[in-house]
Amino acid sequence: MDVAVLSASMTDFGERDAWIQELLAEAALDCLDSTGATPEDVEHLYVSNMASGEFEGRTGVMNALAADIGATPAYAQRVGQTSASGGAGLYAAWQSIASGASEMTLLVGGEKMTHTTTGDSSDIIASLTHPVEYSHGVTLPSFAGLTARRYLDRFDVPRDSLAEVAVKNHGNAVDNPRAQFHKEITVDEAMDSPVVADPLRLYDYCPVTDGSAALLFCPVSVAEQYTDEYVELTGVAGASDTHVVHEREDPTWMGAVAESGRQAFEMADCEQSDIDVMELHDMVTLLEPLELEALGFAERGEGWRFAVEGKTQRDGELPVNTSGGLKARGHPLGATGVAQAVEIYEQLLGEAGDRQVEASRGLTCNVGGFGNCVTTAIFEEGSA
Amino acid sequence: MDVAVLSASMTDFGERDAWIQELLAEAALDCLDSTGATPEDVEHLYVSNMASGEFEGRTGVMNALAADIGATPAYAQRVGQTSASGGAGLYAAWQSIASGASEMTLLVGGEKMTHTTTGDSSDIIASLTHPVEYSHGVTLPSFAGLTARRYLDRFDVPRDSLAEVAVKNHGNAVDNPRAQFHKEITVDEAMDSPVVADPLRLYDYCPVTDGSAALLFCPVSVAEQYTDEYVELTGVAGASDTHVVHEREDPTWMGAVAESGRQAFEMADCEQSDIDVMELHDMVTLLEPLELEALGFAERGEGWRFAVEGKTQRDGELPVNTSGGLKARGHPLGATGVAQAVEIYEQLLGEAGDRQVEASRGLTCNVGGFGNCVTTAIFEEGSA
Repeated sequence: MDVAVLSASMTDFGERDAWIQELLAEAALDCLDSTGATPEDVEHLYVSNMASGEFEGRTGVMNALAADIGATPAYAQRVGQTSASGGAGLYAAWQSIASGASEMTLLVGGEKMTHTTTGDSSDIIASLTHPVEYSHGVTLPSFAGLTARRYLDRFDVPRDSLAEVAVKNHGNAVDNPRAQFHKEITVDEAMDSPVVADPLRLYDYCPVTDGSAALLFCPVSVAEQYTDEYVELTGVAGASDTHVVHEREDPTWMGAVAESGRQAFEMADCEQSDIDVMELHDMVTLLEPLELEALGFAERGEGWRFAVEGKTQRDGELPVNTSGGLKARGHPLGATGVAQAVEIYEQLLGEAGDRQVEASRGLTCNVGGFGNCVTTAIFEEGSA
Repeated sequence: MDVAVLSASMTDFGERDAWIQELLAEAALDCLDSTGATPEDVEHLYVSNMASGEFEGRTGVMNALAADIGATPAYAQRVGQTSASGGAGLYAAWQSIASGASEMTLLVGGEKMTHTTTGDSSDIIASLTHPVEYSHGVTLPSFAGLTARRYLDRFDVPRDSLAEVAVKNHGNAVDNPRAQFHKEITVDEAMDSPVVADPLRLYDYCPVTDGSAALLFCPVSVAEQYTDEYVELTGVAGASDTHVVHEREDPTWMGAVAESGRQAFEMADCEQSDIDVMELHDMVTLLEPLELEALGFAERGEGWRFAVEGKTQRDGELPVNTSGGLKARGHPLGATGVAQAVEIYEQLLGEAGDRQVEASRGLTCNVGGFGNCVTTAIFEEGSA
């Protein structure tokens, strides 16, 4: 069964004076509003969320959302894959439609991170690592530092090529009204920002963010009853890598990105040259080139050249993170994979405003942990 | 596509000196062991778990499990629906096979509850309630007390009829080597046990439990390549009710149980009289009669008669909770919905030992919160 995305929305990302439950409802209602569908039409409701229990002591978020938007008695379930929960939500939503279990599935990803009721935000995020890593203080930012050092050294990569990724993504976010940051930065500013985990600095990392995003899925045949402006989810697949990062032969090779990408391309029956726009998981600048390599867009050790040479700029041949990416749009963990798809949806339907590029096929890659669990998805303009 | 359960297993339930990660791996490896399938054959891996982040500060459990059993690079995802996470896992696994996304899906449900690293166990469980309930101290045990009072009063139900449920389920658990309790109890003992939330007493409630359970799913056509002893998952559906319990017209009516049951029967194309054995969610004794009513086996206000009159005894016409139920087998939150299906699997294939009843079709009902989110599933003996 062909699976359509009928509608897409996201809240403003940033520091929000709202609970997770309110954030989820905001994106959900907005997503339904722009269609002829009502909350009563929703048969399955998936909430992508990493840690509302840890951040706010709330674990019944899917139930709360169903009730708050008036979707009860819809089936409501939480989908978790740490920072790739949103991408996993795309896969769950696809399966719900493709299996015939649901004819109208609402996926809402969200996270409330800037205030926690139960502990330290960094500590909660680090709960996705293996205890053997955590106990040595190897959290995600420090993994990124260690891996960046190896990447820069092994492939003789100039340090400021990573800063170029941050500069590009901050530049894109200026034109995204819902992005957390609306501030251009320069390579010099990025290179002068405080060291977080040598050789990486503050501007290499995404911020802590509140926000949510939503997508409405249905069979293509149903979508065509509502609109002739929809997107198709033609390829989606996920893969895992070792839980302990040091068990990987080469930590600069994102194996789960490669495997999920391979499967998604096969399912969508297309190849790299068919992709016009991408949202990659730049939790840290380093990951953007590593994903370009693992997904087969760049040769090994060459991904860093893309931002430097302008290929991934908005006016380049393969625009990446036109939304501003995790770096500047923000990274509310469970929302991110959904927000990536929202950007691609808008690009494919010509709704991206000042960020608009020419695109009829787009890709999202959402990474959990340091490449631990990954979902890759390919979207195409609907052909009603 | 017809979906088969190829294999089923569970760990000993009780207080276990093991982390969540070890518990999950134990059931998973045992489940694969009895088949010709290997960890490398697993394409999708679902972990049903409510709160490993809150109980043990671990959120990467699906990734850990994939790595620990050697299933990497399988797709690994966590499925959450509070205390119905296991039931939701059945639905997710079904969708993964029925959609064609996976040809071999391993579902593992588990929870480690008896020790927590991060807080009080009751507090963690109560995180599934609405904050407006929680802030008034209305946790699940107290909801049960309030609802029991109403049920007993409204339908003129003898208090000791609930004790009969506990006595029956404790009796069944004696013959279940993996159950938490192996201790017969009497109605007098149950009625004399300490009051928890009037009119309910200690023996009305399930214990806090560690444990895990696993099921291996594949298309029927694939199952037949491995064995002629398999079970089919012919009906599965879920539904939600209000998040705030007092918003329900009648809290003694389990609306989400009724709705998920209605859909599951429709999908399985059978009716109540076709069911030979059931595992119901007796988190508290009261829920067993309420589910018998909502699922259409008993008239309103008459469910309590079933245990009293012996219908739901092992030698009765409709044995319920032959495993011992949540009451005596134990209730490791995320494991329960999977463990219910393990019992039905064993009953249908004649592997239930001293608990064996005659059955060719069975039903499981897994309840999240106080009927907030529910999944009902119907299994039939495979017909290879």
